[in-house]
Amino acid sequence: MFEATLKEAATLKKIIDAIKDLVTDVNIDATPQGLSLQAMDSSHVALVSLTLGQQGFEKYRADRAMTLGISITNLAKVLKLASNEDKLSMKADEDGQHLQICFSNSKQEKQTQFNLNLITLDSEHLGIPETNYSSEITMNSFDFQKLCKELHQLSETVTIEASIEYVQFSIEGEVGSGVIKISTNDSSNEKDTKQDKVTLSFALRYLNMFNKASSLCNYVKLMLACDTPLVVEYEIENMGSLKYYLAPKINENE
Amino acid sequence: MFEATLKEAATLKKIIDAIKDLVTDVNIDATPQGLSLQAMDSSHVALVSLTLGQQGFEKYRADRAMTLGISITNLAKVLKLASNEDKLSMKADEDGQHLQICFSNSKQEKQTQFNLNLITLDSEHLGIPETNYSSEITMNSFDFQKLCKELHQLSETVTIEASIEYVQFSIEGEVGSGVIKISTNDSSNEKDTKQDKVTLSFALRYLNMFNKASSLCNYVKLMLACDTPLVVEYEIENMGSLKYYLAPKINENE
Amino acid sequence: MFEATLKEAATLKKIIDAIKDLVTDVNIDATPQGLSLQAMDSSHVALVSLTLGQQGFEKYRADRAMTLGISITNLAKVLKLASNEDKLSMKADEDGQHLQICFSNSKQEKQTQFNLNLITLDSEHLGIPETNYSSEITMNSFDFQKLCKELHQLSETVTIEASIEYVQFSIEGEVGSGVIKISTNDSSNEKDTKQDKVTLSFALRYLNMFNKASSLCNYVKLMLACDTPLVVEYEIENMGSLKYYLAPKINENE
Repeated sequence: MFEATLKEAATLKKIIDAIKDLVTDVNIDATPQGLSLQAMDSSHVALVSLTLGQQGFEKYRADRAMTLGISITNLAKVLKLASNEDKLSMKADEDGQHLQICFSNSKQEKQTQFNLNLITLDSEHLGIPETNYSSEITMNSFDFQKLCKELHQLSETVTIEASIEYVQFSIEGEVGSGVIKISTNDSSNEKDTKQDKVTLSFALRYLNMFNKASSLCNYVKLMLACDTPLVVEYEIENMGSLKYYLAPKINENE
Repeated sequence: MFEATLKEAATLKKIIDAIKDLVTDVNIDATPQGLSLQAMDSSHVALVSLTLGQQGFEKYRADRAMTLGISITNLAKVLKLASNEDKLSMKADEDGQHLQICFSNSKQEKQTQFNLNLITLDSEHLGIPETNYSSEITMNSFDFQKLCKELHQLSETVTIEASIEYVQFSIEGEVGSGVIKISTNDSSNEKDTKQDKVTLSFALRYLNMFNKASSLCNYVKLMLACDTPLVVEYEIENMGSLKYYLAPKINENE
Repeated sequence: MFEATLKEAATLKKIIDAIKDLVTDVNIDATPQGLSLQAMDSSHVALVSLTLGQQGFEKYRADRAMTLGISITNLAKVLKLASNEDKLSMKADEDGQHLQICFSNSKQEKQTQFNLNLITLDSEHLGIPETNYSSEITMNSFDFQKLCKELHQLSETVTIEASIEYVQFSIEGEVGSGVIKISTNDSSNEKDTKQDKVTLSFALRYLNMFNKASSLCNYVKLMLACDTPLVVEYEIENMGSLKYYLAPKINENE
């Protein structure tokens, strides 16, 4: 049996909103350590990886590892029934037919109980190799969201160049070419920023999808290494993280 | 001759917004007692009934009963010209060609006068039988609006079960099944709640159209009786009420 | 060489937003006196005329008169990269291939540089004859925007009648006929209002496009004279003005 209670439904609502445009059906793994999920988008360019440690739940119990096949689209609809401040609990029996989801408001006079039908999915084992990232950039998640959205109006692709002193986002398109340079020499970022310079190009369409997660955390961490997928990481306070991996575009000039 | 003045145009703006998705052309009856309107939606599943007593108007005069054939769609467009706080007056001569609508703001320096063309409609006499409702539920109108909107994402139909202690909204669909239970044992509601338990199913599409009226009143009254249309009633302060009637769905399990 | 710096990007953002629905590609003239632009809309019914005097820029330099062919659509996209409070500078070399646009925020840690491709356009010399307007009306720009938008729901055309005591907007359509009369006998307007009465009709579609400029200035000036295009003028504080000219409709009753 699996059972977990979140103090505020808002956390799960934001997580599901942040992945529902990227993945539709996923297997969620419930183990005694917590919940986790890994899934690729339908075009196999991006990967979502969610980790929610059991310590972040108000109550958590998983007698043994269980796999819950979930339609993210449907779960998102059910979560709309919850207010942000509602207490949320989930329960699944060994038979694995339903995930029972309950919301209750603080005054307890409104109780919602929903039995979400579970689905059967082939499980995909996705190996994410350990990488030594040459650049780690921490920036305000809303600034990153705005920047990616606006650059997408001008180009499909952004080139990110990261060094110890700055991170630079550049585009080229029919309209012209542009560069946004952000200095990173303030003390809080410095300690996170490693030395090597790295330049990689990415599809803005995906970055814009990842940016739905900006409501989860005020800052976002970008990790880059040569010829390696970009990691866009949002911390989920006291619980874990939501990470997106995006393969770089092949530079046509090389 | 008919003449009526409202202290604030907002009242009529909200009423017309609340019915314009349901009915397009209607006869409004102006009598010495006030204004009233009854109309069915085009699919004859729902009925709107509006009563505005003369006492709620700043000025009211109807020498004899008159019927005003109004295009609600056009009236809604004309009312957009009025600010919420404008004084609104309406006037119709015996010949019944136009309804003259005037708005003026408090400083009187802006005056709008519109002659709305009246139309000729077959009058429909709709008998609403007096019913002894077994359940009357009063709830926050915005909560009811939110609930119906979100349930509609998951199902076409909601089943309402009302008893003395609670009201319960349940749905079943491809996604799964769910129940929202609201306790009604607080003292303010208790006195309004009668004893018998009743269970009926309704099309959420219509409830969502009725919910446009939530701007008229902070609470909504639901009245249920076995095999009888649901009444969804919004009080219009000092003036009357806007009531919607909705036929229950036949339960296929019976 | 041409170079100009604006203290706040907001000014240019608002100007471009206010003309981008009307004109797509334009020649901007940069002279030692400042920037100016004149362009007709594609259907040759309306004309936009922008004047930005050099005194309104934080820094301004134009060695000789230069013509910059600009895609307004693309410039609008580039300006989205700027925050309202960013400092904005523009630079063009003699070769006229690009307009370099730079934004920087006050803390200077974010710098955006964009090279907008310039385009070659036939230059159109539009003579606007000096006119002695019989009526000049000054009104709140948001009120005028709201009024035009709502009248457009009811009619394609508005007839403006201006006299010393009032300005009147009237429409006629299938829905009915209406008149909005605004008294202008307050002292602040009186001095701007000349004596003759004038009545002209205009396409509301264009007035609604002009009204995008209401964000530039809290008031708008309407200037009318018999058989002459209406002028709708928005002042740009300390810099100049944005004027729209609109040819009157021929009155079919005459």
